[in-house]
Amino acid sequence: MIDEHSRDMPAADFRRYGQQLIAWIAEYLNDPRQYPVLARCQPGDLRRQLPATGPQRGESMATILQDFEQVILPAVTHWNHPHFHAYFSISSSAPGILGELLTAALDANAMLWKSCPAATELEQTTVAWVLDWLGLPSAWFGMILDSASNAVLQAIVAARQRAEPQSRASGPSGRLVAYVSEHTHSSVEKAAIAAGIGQSNVRHIAVDAAFRMRPEALEQAIQCDLANGLTPFFAAATVGTTSSTAVDPIEEIAAICGANGLWLHVDGAYGASFGVVPECRHFLNGVGHADSFVVNPHKMMMVPLDCSLFYTRHPQLLRSAFSLEAEYLKTDAPGAVDYMDYGLALGRRFRALKLWFVMRCFGRDGLAAILRESLRMAAWLGERIGADERFELVAPVIMGLVCFRLRQGDAETKELMRRINGSGRHFVSHTVLDGRFTIRVAIGNIRTEQRDVEELWDNIAKS
Amino acid sequence: MIDEHSRDMPAADFRRYGQQLIAWIAEYLNDPRQYPVLARCQPGDLRRQLPATGPQRGESMATILQDFEQVILPAVTHWNHPHFHAYFSISSSAPGILGELLTAALDANAMLWKSCPAATELEQTTVAWVLDWLGLPSAWFGMILDSASNAVLQAIVAARQRAEPQSRASGPSGRLVAYVSEHTHSSVEKAAIAAGIGQSNVRHIAVDAAFRMRPEALEQAIQCDLANGLTPFFAAATVGTTSSTAVDPIEEIAAICGANGLWLHVDGAYGASFGVVPECRHFLNGVGHADSFVVNPHKMMMVPLDCSLFYTRHPQLLRSAFSLEAEYLKTDAPGAVDYMDYGLALGRRFRALKLWFVMRCFGRDGLAAILRESLRMAAWLGERIGADERFELVAPVIMGLVCFRLRQGDAETKELMRRINGSGRHFVSHTVLDGRFTIRVAIGNIRTEQRDVEELWDNIAKS
Repeated sequence: MIDEHSRDMPAADFRRYGQQLIAWIAEYLNDPRQYPVLARCQPGDLRRQLPATGPQRGESMATILQDFEQVILPAVTHWNHPHFHAYFSISSSAPGILGELLTAALDANAMLWKSCPAATELEQTTVAWVLDWLGLPSAWFGMILDSASNAVLQAIVAARQRAEPQSRASGPSGRLVAYVSEHTHSSVEKAAIAAGIGQSNVRHIAVDAAFRMRPEALEQAIQCDLANGLTPFFAAATVGTTSSTAVDPIEEIAAICGANGLWLHVDGAYGASFGVVPECRHFLNGVGHADSFVVNPHKMMMVPLDCSLFYTRHPQLLRSAFSLEAEYLKTDAPGAVDYMDYGLALGRRFRALKLWFVMRCFGRDGLAAILRESLRMAAWLGERIGADERFELVAPVIMGLVCFRLRQGDAETKELMRRINGSGRHFVSHTVLDGRFTIRVAIGNIRTEQRDVEELWDNIAKS
Repeated sequence: MIDEHSRDMPAADFRRYGQQLIAWIAEYLNDPRQYPVLARCQPGDLRRQLPATGPQRGESMATILQDFEQVILPAVTHWNHPHFHAYFSISSSAPGILGELLTAALDANAMLWKSCPAATELEQTTVAWVLDWLGLPSAWFGMILDSASNAVLQAIVAARQRAEPQSRASGPSGRLVAYVSEHTHSSVEKAAIAAGIGQSNVRHIAVDAAFRMRPEALEQAIQCDLANGLTPFFAAATVGTTSSTAVDPIEEIAAICGANGLWLHVDGAYGASFGVVPECRHFLNGVGHADSFVVNPHKMMMVPLDCSLFYTRHPQLLRSAFSLEAEYLKTDAPGAVDYMDYGLALGRRFRALKLWFVMRCFGRDGLAAILRESLRMAAWLGERIGADERFELVAPVIMGLVCFRLRQGDAETKELMRRINGSGRHFVSHTVLDGRFTIRVAIGNIRTEQRDVEELWDNIAKS
């Protein structure tokens, strides 16, 4: 099974199994509806079917692929299924998959410009393209990370560096205070904990009836902390919160941050991609004032996991927070950007390739059309639910998410969710809004069609 | 170009371009020697050839792939080239590439057990397999991360949590001290900065003549800090340092850490994989006493980037450092591990699939044979260089790295490196050892054969 010279799988085998997989994936993507969207297994079911130790001798790829289909696949929850409406409904599109295939084959580490100039320069190019499509400041420095969680950690460390330049040497003072809303993603608080800000120094600002951060409450909290001798240094605002896709009033928040010297991070991981659609560009009003910003093409831009774009207007702060010159990483490429100097991870995949494939294959108009169709279907479902007196829409439907509950109460809404997911036909998730259990229906998969949403509505309405 | 229903590339096109790429990759892997190993371009060369903005309308995949070959490829430094001897010489093997292809197609997020049971349980299975192959404690909790940099950040935050449980709420005290050697990877110091420990609280312990941390110097530094009222809390030891593949005396370091209550993190990112080779198992002596440990299958286990395995004997500390219960992420799967609770990143790729493919395809014996051949070739080159009076071997050749210099001096050694890399035939990198410029030749690519190393020796010896 192993080639004598390369010691790898022989080229003929790679060709054979590679083509088999391409054919399998083409079939899979063509009709994911043949699978139950939600894996029907219990914790431990799969693990019990797998040997406790790896094989002593190599096995044939034919056997491995057979096990993939027979043993692994039944335990897969199908994120690419048109009926996946949980969390956020995302997609890996065909061009994105092909990009990942090439990235794996090249296996380049984009840590330094020299370690793969193409990876660094295609990264610079594609992050600029996305800025342009979103109408954001072209001067921003951008880079591709694995997740919005790591992006906000980098933002917090850079903001800490600005507020307390001595913190790199001696750690933060314990007097720095960060501000999020009650609906900001938990990753911001997690990053503040990791960066040594302390969870008790993270303020959760109240929201209005549409779950948007209340600017006057932010201003009040900052003044209160200042009066107590603390140092407000960082605030996170969101374009499209996880619970309800609320858009915080960025303009007002930016003005408050500017007046008080806070670093404003805008989390557009999910929602900012809709800025590609001209009639949705207003979601990003004020974002141009941000100190840092994140958008995840692996959410609404049809790029496979992982692809999280992190931008900042202060690359030198990022560099002064993170750069360490190890001798074995010094190169002689004047004028080049070595991305490893701007973040935590040294090893960096060549993620720009799949983003480039997707942006070119769909184009700006094509991507806008895909997003517009998701918005239309979410609005359609929202109208049906809103017009049925048994249900209550809990938040305005502004992006690809419908939040609703049964007027009867929490127990009945939970039971409805159990029934929807138990059918095996659809997968929805939940949140709590205004203290009450709420079903979230995310619509955004590239393969979700009107007939799928109608089928979901039938499933919901049967209750 | 877009399918009316799926809005994605039509299945027939995916099949066509997918098969074209598989054929291209098979050819590429079969003979990477047809390309210059090091991209021959200057900073900005590629960027200038690419449009400043993304296309308004979608383009055909045929055009995109043509541009990949004609525009992108010349700027690629070929990590899969048998003559890539810089940094660490790594490989993405054929089964690993096929695994990444499937991971991209499924696009599952392994954040929660429920979000893809197969991803979580295959991750649990494969991390246990690796422990077994390395002869390490089977009870350790393991997970797959993107990089050793993020792994050590998690270790430092968990250690901080143990030393100062109040640090989650209020940040670290500023009195915590971490210990590394002069040759520990820079990512540890970077993580200590990010976690708010402070760079001035990172001690660089002196090394012996073979670049191994001196345990008595560690003990002395700890006692000195204790006498000054500080809190030693964390030490990092390395199995295979980046500069010279030195193996720190883990047994002694573990004893000192144990006696003084320090968290011992062992960085085996590069070197620990050699533990699969029975006669190299001694590299891991003492590692069983570690509190946390990292090994990167994307380095010496032929798995494509990224695949970094992080282990700890204290999963509850990790959880208490990182867990945050957002309502929208709560599930009803009792007994299941939700990996997002054990680290910083919420979004997590299904990385276990490629690791499973590689471990099964090669088997333990097959992987050991690949590693053994790299060790043999590195030893062969080391002998040649050591026997030539013009050269000086600067460190013992114990893994897949040969460190040497010209006796004449730094300027001549730098000139030699420039000549080797300038030839376009080989790519080596450098470090500084004992204050002197040193060429590093890493041997470990799956496709590197004896003839390649002989050719490299010819290139070196011509000087």
